[in-house]
Amino acid sequence: MRARRVVVSRHVPPGQPLIAGAFAVEDFDVPSVGDGQLLVEVAYLSVDPYLRRCLLPHSSPGFPPTIPVGQAPVSRGVGRVLTSRNPGFAPGDVVVGSMRWEEHTVTDGHDGFLPAAHLAKIEPRITSLSNALGVQGLTGMNAYFGVLDVARPRHGETIVVSGAAGAVGSIAGQIAGLAGATVVGLTGSDRKCDVLTRRLGFHHALNYRSPTLRDQLRAICPGGPDIYFDNVGGELSQTIMWQMRKPARIVECGQISTYDTTGWLVDIYPLHANQLTLTSVLGSAYVDLFPAAIAQLGHWLDTGQVVALETVSQGIESGPEALEGLFHGSNIGKSLVRVR
Amino acid sequence: MRARRVVVSRHVPPGQPLIAGAFAVEDFDVPSVGDGQLLVEVAYLSVDPYLRRCLLPHSSPGFPPTIPVGQAPVSRGVGRVLTSRNPGFAPGDVVVGSMRWEEHTVTDGHDGFLPAAHLAKIEPRITSLSNALGVQGLTGMNAYFGVLDVARPRHGETIVVSGAAGAVGSIAGQIAGLAGATVVGLTGSDRKCDVLTRRLGFHHALNYRSPTLRDQLRAICPGGPDIYFDNVGGELSQTIMWQMRKPARIVECGQISTYDTTGWLVDIYPLHANQLTLTSVLGSAYVDLFPAAIAQLGHWLDTGQVVALETVSQGIESGPEALEGLFHGSNIGKSLVRVR
Repeated sequence: MRARRVVVSRHVPPGQPLIAGAFAVEDFDVPSVGDGQLLVEVAYLSVDPYLRRCLLPHSSPGFPPTIPVGQAPVSRGVGRVLTSRNPGFAPGDVVVGSMRWEEHTVTDGHDGFLPAAHLAKIEPRITSLSNALGVQGLTGMNAYFGVLDVARPRHGETIVVSGAAGAVGSIAGQIAGLAGATVVGLTGSDRKCDVLTRRLGFHHALNYRSPTLRDQLRAICPGGPDIYFDNVGGELSQTIMWQMRKPARIVECGQISTYDTTGWLVDIYPLHANQLTLTSVLGSAYVDLFPAAIAQLGHWLDTGQVVALETVSQGIESGPEALEGLFHGSNIGKSLVRVR
Repeated sequence: MRARRVVVSRHVPPGQPLIAGAFAVEDFDVPSVGDGQLLVEVAYLSVDPYLRRCLLPHSSPGFPPTIPVGQAPVSRGVGRVLTSRNPGFAPGDVVVGSMRWEEHTVTDGHDGFLPAAHLAKIEPRITSLSNALGVQGLTGMNAYFGVLDVARPRHGETIVVSGAAGAVGSIAGQIAGLAGATVVGLTGSDRKCDVLTRRLGFHHALNYRSPTLRDQLRAICPGGPDIYFDNVGGELSQTIMWQMRKPARIVECGQISTYDTTGWLVDIYPLHANQLTLTSVLGSAYVDLFPAAIAQLGHWLDTGQVVALETVSQGIESGPEALEGLFHGSNIGKSLVRVR
C-alpha cells in the first residue's frame, strides 16, 4: 500500500521563525504489519507548539528530541485500526496515541516521547474524534488539571490567561469561569478578543499587542491578578508578573514564545519581588484521573458550558502550514490536521 | 560631632566582581537632630548580598535603587539612641532598622527601601544585639517562614539547601531538620561542609564545586530531593532542578550568583519537565508574625537546637571587604560589621 507522509527536510536553527519550509511531503510504501503491530488509518493529527523545538539542529537534554532529516514528526493522533497483530486491538477499533505524520501508519503503540501517549482505545465518553486530541485530549487535560488542581481559583478571584485563544488557554479560561473566577484573556488580535468574550464567555479580553495593556489590565483588576495561567512566556509574562497581587500564583503550562530558543529563560525577579508561586503543570502526570476529567468535560460540552473551538486544516500536507500558523497566532482553539 | 562613614566612590558594572574598591571611608559632620529624628550610635550593621546590586550604574524598576556616588549604603542595623526628637523613642533605647553605614547616624526611622525595615525598639525576646540582624532579624525570618510556611517539610522528606553556610541557609537547614526532614547542605568548600555537619547538624553536606556533585546527591536521595531551598540561583540551581523528584517544590530565597547582572535569569524548563513549584519567600511579608518567630528562634537558641554562626568584622571601614567576602564564599553564617 502507498500513502503520503510529512517528513523533516531540514532543521531550523534557534531564532529562525520559518517552519513550513522545513518539511516535505512524500509518498512511501506502508510497511507490512509485524508482530505486536497495528496498521492505523489516521483520521486526525494534533498540531502542537513543541514540534517547533523538534526542528532545532541539536537536541537538548530533557527536551523532546530533534527529528532526524527524512523522518516524520510524531504527535498525538486518532485513527481506525485496519489490521492488527496485537492482541490488545482489533480491526475497527478507534485508537488515540502517538502517531507519525503518515496517512496510514504502522505502529506498536509506543512511538513518541510523550508520557501517557501510548496507543489506547478511545474512551467511550469522548464526544468526537477531534475532541480526543483537543478538549478531551492532552491539551484539555493541561487546562483541566492546571486550573482545578494547580490554580484552584476561588470565587471572586481574577485569573489572567495568556494564549487565551489557543488550545489550552481557551479551555482553561472557560473552566476557571465555571469555578467562579473573573477571567481575563490575553490574545494577539481584536478579532480573537471578540471570540473570547462573545463565544467563550471570558469576562474580559485584551490584545497583548496594545501599548496600553498595563493600564487596561490595571483598570480591570486594580489590585492585580490573583492567578496567571501562562501558555506563552517571554516579555508578555514578565509584564504580567510585575502587575500581580502579592502574593499570587502562576500556572506555567508552556512558553510558546521561547520555542525557537534552546532554553526557557525567565527573569524570576518579579516572582521574588511579588512573592509569587510558579507551578508547572503537565496534564500527562494526571493519567490516572483522565477518565473523570474526560467525563466532566464531556458533560460541559453537552450542556454548552464549555465550547471547544478548532482550527482544522485538510490533508496531511497541510500540517506544516498549520504548525507555522501556531507561531503567527493565526489559529483559534485546537489546531488539527484532518488526514481523511 | 565628627564620625566616620562608608560611601560609594564608584559604580560597578554588571559582570565585574570587584566590590570593596567601590567604597571609600570618610569623616563627616554628624548633622544636628531635626524634628522627628533620632541620633543613633550604631552597634552592628548587616552585610547583605543585595547591596552588590545597589552598586550597578543604573537602577532597574522594582530593584533596590543604585546608591549615588558619595552616599552611604543603607542596611539593617542596631544601635542605641543618644538623642531623640521623636516621641516614640527615648535616649538609651536600643533600636533596629534601616541605617546608613555611619558610626553615628541621624535618622527619622524611614531610610532604606526594605519593607518592614523602619526603625523600632528591639524586641525583648531578641537574645543578642547581633542576633537582631541575623537569626532573629530579616535573614532569620526568611529562613523561618521560608521553611515552615512555604517549604513545609514533612517527616522523612529530603531538603537540599544551597548557600547552606550562609546567613539564611544555615538557619533554614537547621529548622528543616527540627521539622523532621533529611537536610543536605550545598556549600563551596570542604571546610564549610564540616561546619554544616559537625556544628549545625546537617545530615549531609556537599561541596558544590565537586565534579561528582550530581552522583553524590543521587547517592543520598536516589528519588531526588523533595524540596530545594535556594539562596544561590545560577548554574547550580539548574543542576539541582534537573535532579528533583516529580513533582517537588522549590523555595526561592535569593539568587546571589546573579547579583552582578541586571536580571535573575533562570531556565525554567526543568521546572516544567519535573512539574516543580517555585515559590519566592520574602520574610518581610510576615511582619505581623515576627514576634512568634523571634520567640521560637530564641527558644531554639537557648536550648542549643539552633546554632547561629556569625562572621563579624571590626570597624565600619571593614564593611566593603565583608561585602566582597560574601561573593567569595569566605564568610560563614551571618555577616556583620561591629561598628563599636
